[in-house]
Amino acid sequence: MEPPLSEVFGRFFLPGPTEVHPDVLQAQARALIGHRGPAIKELMGELQTGLKDVFRTESPVMISTSSATGLMEAAVRNGARSRVLSLVNGAFSARFADIARACGLEVDTLDVEWGQALSPDAVRDRLSGGDYDAVTVVHSETSTGALNPLADISRAVRESDDVVLLVDSVTGVGGVEVLSDEWQLDFVLTGSQKALALPPGLAFGVASERLMERSKTATRKGVYFDLELFAKQLDNLQTPTTPAVSLLYALAEQLRRISAEGMVSRWARHRTMAERCEQWVATMRAEHGVGLSVLAPEGARSPTVTCVALPEDVEGPSVVAGVKERGFVIGGGYGKLKSTTFRIGHMGDHSPEELEAVLEALEEVLT
Amino acid sequence: MEPPLSEVFGRFFLPGPTEVHPDVLQAQARALIGHRGPAIKELMGELQTGLKDVFRTESPVMISTSSATGLMEAAVRNGARSRVLSLVNGAFSARFADIARACGLEVDTLDVEWGQALSPDAVRDRLSGGDYDAVTVVHSETSTGALNPLADISRAVRESDDVVLLVDSVTGVGGVEVLSDEWQLDFVLTGSQKALALPPGLAFGVASERLMERSKTATRKGVYFDLELFAKQLDNLQTPTTPAVSLLYALAEQLRRISAEGMVSRWARHRTMAERCEQWVATMRAEHGVGLSVLAPEGARSPTVTCVALPEDVEGPSVVAGVKERGFVIGGGYGKLKSTTFRIGHMGDHSPEELEAVLEALEEVLT
Repeated sequence: MEPPLSEVFGRFFLPGPTEVHPDVLQAQARALIGHRGPAIKELMGELQTGLKDVFRTESPVMISTSSATGLMEAAVRNGARSRVLSLVNGAFSARFADIARACGLEVDTLDVEWGQALSPDAVRDRLSGGDYDAVTVVHSETSTGALNPLADISRAVRESDDVVLLVDSVTGVGGVEVLSDEWQLDFVLTGSQKALALPPGLAFGVASERLMERSKTATRKGVYFDLELFAKQLDNLQTPTTPAVSLLYALAEQLRRISAEGMVSRWARHRTMAERCEQWVATMRAEHGVGLSVLAPEGARSPTVTCVALPEDVEGPSVVAGVKERGFVIGGGYGKLKSTTFRIGHMGDHSPEELEAVLEALEEVLT
Repeated sequence: MEPPLSEVFGRFFLPGPTEVHPDVLQAQARALIGHRGPAIKELMGELQTGLKDVFRTESPVMISTSSATGLMEAAVRNGARSRVLSLVNGAFSARFADIARACGLEVDTLDVEWGQALSPDAVRDRLSGGDYDAVTVVHSETSTGALNPLADISRAVRESDDVVLLVDSVTGVGGVEVLSDEWQLDFVLTGSQKALALPPGLAFGVASERLMERSKTATRKGVYFDLELFAKQLDNLQTPTTPAVSLLYALAEQLRRISAEGMVSRWARHRTMAERCEQWVATMRAEHGVGLSVLAPEGARSPTVTCVALPEDVEGPSVVAGVKERGFVIGGGYGKLKSTTFRIGHMGDHSPEELEAVLEALEEVLT
């Protein structure tokens, strides 16, 4: 079985999983090391330096052998006591609410239309009237391309006593500015195969001190996602259970590449690509008469994924198929937006030059 | 960072993680594929064929991106209702009990001395007197080298109405005969980095129909280890969350190697290595006057790991260190057996010839 992607490197614009650089792929093939010896500590030390830079934190960064869903579950199992307010503006934020319910929590949602962002004022109002102990939010809604104002939402949440903020920044961290410490996020997580451009199989999270206090008294939290165990083992530069060592090698390699670029440059590169998509949509409308629009409103657009709303006479899947014929993979509309939108994932290691190529293909399909 | 193991291939006899063949390591470096397209289904189809052969089952084999601990948690979250009887004869079976407690279950233990195996009669007696709904057992106790009589324990458990058997066969499956269907195991799991000789990061499990019925009514089971979701997605040859695709490539490669050897031959090779260790211990005593003994009693010894009890005047760690000076890695005694035992892991792809080399080194150290 020869995976088809080898033929389309530089042409894969899904909003995750993202393309992975050949050097990073190759790093996985190194001979393995045990997970309790000195070699793993050396590796983990290197990973911590890089990950702290990515998350802009002084706290240890937890490394979970799981998809991001695992750490979403960890967030609610360790951080929520009984009543959760889930901010919902798309498919993945709705999923965060579902995960909390599946862990036995009582969950209310604060909903806005798919494609919109949450307003900190609405969060503030809702919290003042309820008896919530945790709020879940998705930073960059991969299903709609909307970016929530995370710093402001965090400020609003902290006005309520003893409410923690649990953040899924799966298509945020690594491509979008996330200042975990400065914004006082109680738990922020991402997965490896999104803006960090790694193979799938790892998830990363940072917990605040008060989140760790919550974890101490959490009941029925299990073992695999017990953040206390993660923190305890991280003190010793280890993981609570056997980690996916090959994926840690890939992470080390990619963190070196990320460090060489610099986080500020990395965020800027992603913003540039998002702005180019906006500009392209405007040009398509003005010069070609194709009634496209960016789904998310100005000022609330994710730098890592652009969701484009189509005119009524064009079907999303036909656009995706047309682009595929030209050798590019883009994302279809998600869930209820399937027929009315398509999505361009411009995250990870993509360059603005590569983005031009897919936009050209899209232009051919749409005109 | 150059991992040290590259220099000691063929010389690494820990009871997990095990050495991984270079072809299997290299398979991880292949270009990635998306986890919802046709390519993943083709890959998953191939994996299912191989894994069903390994587990001797007609049921789908669940593939979890986690260590085996994750599926131990899945076992109790999906399979146990409220009261669990944990069979404890070593460190890992004690851990299974701890995991059940951490998930909020009431747990009693049936203990025998470390190194001993559980008797089906004792299990039968204990179940008749209690109100248990699930039993946990570790098939091959990696900490002591004891092998529990799984088929007989399963028969004993099934005499009680509505009690499920949850089996950790982490150092069993792939090296020891496990007939999941014939023995009517309700849930049996293993990790990738043990007898299957894969990189760490995956765990595999098979559930019985009645276990899946239990899962339907399980509350607070979360999402990441929800076996219903695994089963539903497996119907479509997919996983519930993004899988570690690189590790699936390694699995495909290794399953081809395992299939070429054949499971029956693979079990026989492991038995041969265990028997050779027994014989070596006897020779050391008879010919060299070194008072070694195999910790587990005859008839209850694991084919994948031998735990050797030392005479009073020899310390376990000094043996491990002496062997290390000769270029081999073996396992120290585990937990309370640290000073009085050492362990030889002879699982995965090791050959009897490679085992001879480590036994020679041990003989040098001990005489």
